[in-house]
Amino acid sequence: MQKVTDFIEKNHERYIFELRELCAIPSVSTKSEHKPDIERCARWLADHMKKIGLENIEIVPTEGHPIVYADWLHAPGKPTLLIYGHYDVQPAEPLDLWLSPPWDLTLRDGDLYARGVVDDKGQVLIHLKALEAFFKNEGKLPVNVKLVIEGEEEVGSDNLYVFIEKEKKRLEADALVVSDTCMLGKGIPSICYGLRGLSYYEMEVIGPTVDLHSGSFGGAVPNPLNIAFEMMAKLKDADGRVTIPVFYDDVLPLTEKERKLLAELPFNEKTFQETTGAKQLPGEKGYTVAERIWARPTLDINGMYGGYEGEGAKTVIPSKATVKFSTRLVPNQDPDKIAKLVGEHMKRIAPPSVTINFTILSTGKWWLAPFDHPFIQAGKRALEEGFGKKAVFIREGGSIPLVSMIYENLRKPCVLLGFGLPDENAHAPNERLHLENYLKGILSIAYFYHEVGQLPPEAAHAAA
Amino acid sequence: MQKVTDFIEKNHERYIFELRELCAIPSVSTKSEHKPDIERCARWLADHMKKIGLENIEIVPTEGHPIVYADWLHAPGKPTLLIYGHYDVQPAEPLDLWLSPPWDLTLRDGDLYARGVVDDKGQVLIHLKALEAFFKNEGKLPVNVKLVIEGEEEVGSDNLYVFIEKEKKRLEADALVVSDTCMLGKGIPSICYGLRGLSYYEMEVIGPTVDLHSGSFGGAVPNPLNIAFEMMAKLKDADGRVTIPVFYDDVLPLTEKERKLLAELPFNEKTFQETTGAKQLPGEKGYTVAERIWARPTLDINGMYGGYEGEGAKTVIPSKATVKFSTRLVPNQDPDKIAKLVGEHMKRIAPPSVTINFTILSTGKWWLAPFDHPFIQAGKRALEEGFGKKAVFIREGGSIPLVSMIYENLRKPCVLLGFGLPDENAHAPNERLHLENYLKGILSIAYFYHEVGQLPPEAAHAAA
Repeated sequence: MQKVTDFIEKNHERYIFELRELCAIPSVSTKSEHKPDIERCARWLADHMKKIGLENIEIVPTEGHPIVYADWLHAPGKPTLLIYGHYDVQPAEPLDLWLSPPWDLTLRDGDLYARGVVDDKGQVLIHLKALEAFFKNEGKLPVNVKLVIEGEEEVGSDNLYVFIEKEKKRLEADALVVSDTCMLGKGIPSICYGLRGLSYYEMEVIGPTVDLHSGSFGGAVPNPLNIAFEMMAKLKDADGRVTIPVFYDDVLPLTEKERKLLAELPFNEKTFQETTGAKQLPGEKGYTVAERIWARPTLDINGMYGGYEGEGAKTVIPSKATVKFSTRLVPNQDPDKIAKLVGEHMKRIAPPSVTINFTILSTGKWWLAPFDHPFIQAGKRALEEGFGKKAVFIREGGSIPLVSMIYENLRKPCVLLGFGLPDENAHAPNERLHLENYLKGILSIAYFYHEVGQLPPEAAHAAA
Repeated sequence: MQKVTDFIEKNHERYIFELRELCAIPSVSTKSEHKPDIERCARWLADHMKKIGLENIEIVPTEGHPIVYADWLHAPGKPTLLIYGHYDVQPAEPLDLWLSPPWDLTLRDGDLYARGVVDDKGQVLIHLKALEAFFKNEGKLPVNVKLVIEGEEEVGSDNLYVFIEKEKKRLEADALVVSDTCMLGKGIPSICYGLRGLSYYEMEVIGPTVDLHSGSFGGAVPNPLNIAFEMMAKLKDADGRVTIPVFYDDVLPLTEKERKLLAELPFNEKTFQETTGAKQLPGEKGYTVAERIWARPTLDINGMYGGYEGEGAKTVIPSKATVKFSTRLVPNQDPDKIAKLVGEHMKRIAPPSVTINFTILSTGKWWLAPFDHPFIQAGKRALEEGFGKKAVFIREGGSIPLVSMIYENLRKPCVLLGFGLPDENAHAPNERLHLENYLKGILSIAYFYHEVGQLPPEAAHAAA
């Protein structure tokens, strides 16, 4: 390992300039005018993979943007890691809010600024640079690897699922490794062991069949806006708890041990509050902020429209109001079961004067790793070696459908080693990646391959 | 009068064809491309006024569309009526929903179809045709008249107020007469003696200072949508009563006598419900539909936006939610006082985690006529003579700011003699005017001028 880590230490400048090259390609997946950039980016990655020593490189066409595949499978008896990342990025707009050009990687006060630098190009390159360090210094890898770098993460990954379904055999592995999450904070290497699930709904409330004049009719007709407000307001009580019956029945309570671990984390509620800009942090009574966002289910309204939205006043009682809302779910809530009972509840609490159209827009399962699994413990040791600091176990309030899918279908462990920070503007102007995390990320991932290569065979093939 | 009424009976066909000419001019006030049509329409009216015998005709330019003024003041000792109407119309779009061309007056099943036919061109012509019948048969009018026909009613009448302010002297009169409202139903001649007031608000609820990911933050931040819903839902109780303290304090209770009169009206709740298309008609407990829309205050949400409004799902907690809502007000509620206390109430019930921006968009006073006033009683007699049926006193749930203004500033009676029907699509495709109401309207207005001319001097100049 010494040669590998020395090599990494000596190549910092080159790593930055290679990331600059990758970030210069505006591989925006949502916009068709960037299709040539997407293809150029896939080509750049494939060429780079070839150059560092990976094999069986293929730019796999899909109905959308291509997937870049590569592998190296010459470590007999050693575990096989499936490494996932994405090369597509969010649009850079609004451009005038960027302090430096979004496609020109800039170093400012210890941070690297560019669209896609943390989400997820920098984290993809972390893996490639760690692999390169082994190839260049040892001529081989301590593990077998299969890389799947997709171009549609920012638009829903539909074609990735088709690819995984079709190529199950080719993608067989002992564990999935993803670097696309955040650390708890600066200087706190973190390994994520849990994600919340999600069920997302749209509800239409229809009162009159036509828009009515609020003067002539106000006070005597069912106003769908008033009624939608009344219905939605009933969904939470004064303690911030969801009032839908059965909603909490399957929730796995936090154990005293886990609460203690969460309480010991250097989770800074003040920093969290500053990130949001909110005056206070209300939430479910009896739980800390970390517990609320990671381990407790919640219900949020995500969008609403109805009636007049223009400037000034229009005295209308609209025919229809539309609410988009979602529930974040935790172990052991079943997203489909919850979605069904939310729909039934909304119809039950709707007054007889209105018609309700309820649609389930999507559901996604939560994920919780057995954090004593050998791969996850290997990840923890690797982070501590790479950063020279104690690593912490954290959870994430969002969802990564791929992780839940791999876990559900293959019962293989997923190791989430993320090097972003919560305030790095992943989808906003001035996206950045802390330079230290980029460089220590490469070192940590090299240690991770090394640690996994050292696992005894029975640990390496254990189910999750 | 016999010669006048005989003349009217003999000229039905001509009245229809003159209305056809007027409706053929697409005098849409909201669209600048119709500016030449607006001017052509004002010119048509001025020419027509001249032809029938009115004097001092003037097309008064304003900062917007012109006002057409005319008078005839040769009935010494007789009352002077200020007759108001408007020649501008709503846009005809969506054109594909019209069963006959909107600018080509068509007679179908006893109804005249065209944009503007009821709102308000037909009702303006009702007055001109009644005046013409006197000029042609008696060479004079039984009253003095001043006509103000504006071209900006559908866009807020701003320049009308400027004109009234500037021309106070010229517009002096004993009563205002407006034909721009509806009858209670087919075959029920109606005189409107009350209008509700209005205060209209916009409230912004700001939680986080930036849009947040609902996965990473949901459950621990103040979601302005959830909070706006909770706040608005608190504004009405289960009995449909507004919960804002002091809100009802100044409400003049309905007297037993008025409730009895309202109950005796041929107000058809079933027809009203069919017009709205709603499954039920909820409202304030303890009041009939007519009482709710005419004589009780209410609170309606008129528009709402915030978060994601596009197709499908976006897992966002928005920084801001915006609600537009309004209160309809009745005697003796003061719109400014109510607006102030609504604003204070919203700030009081807002949780400390959010910032509230509350704006009063407009206020307008209610109006209630002393319906035993001689002018209003003259109106009732005229309708009964014109239609040959008992006339009823009704109120209207909406507001006509001009009426409130004249009443407040000049303390002159306003007589609202409307010949529309509630389902005649005033602002929608297939606008229509029941032919019988057009013709009996002309007769009724002729009787009205005659009745007012007969009033004893002390009655004619009584304050409202």
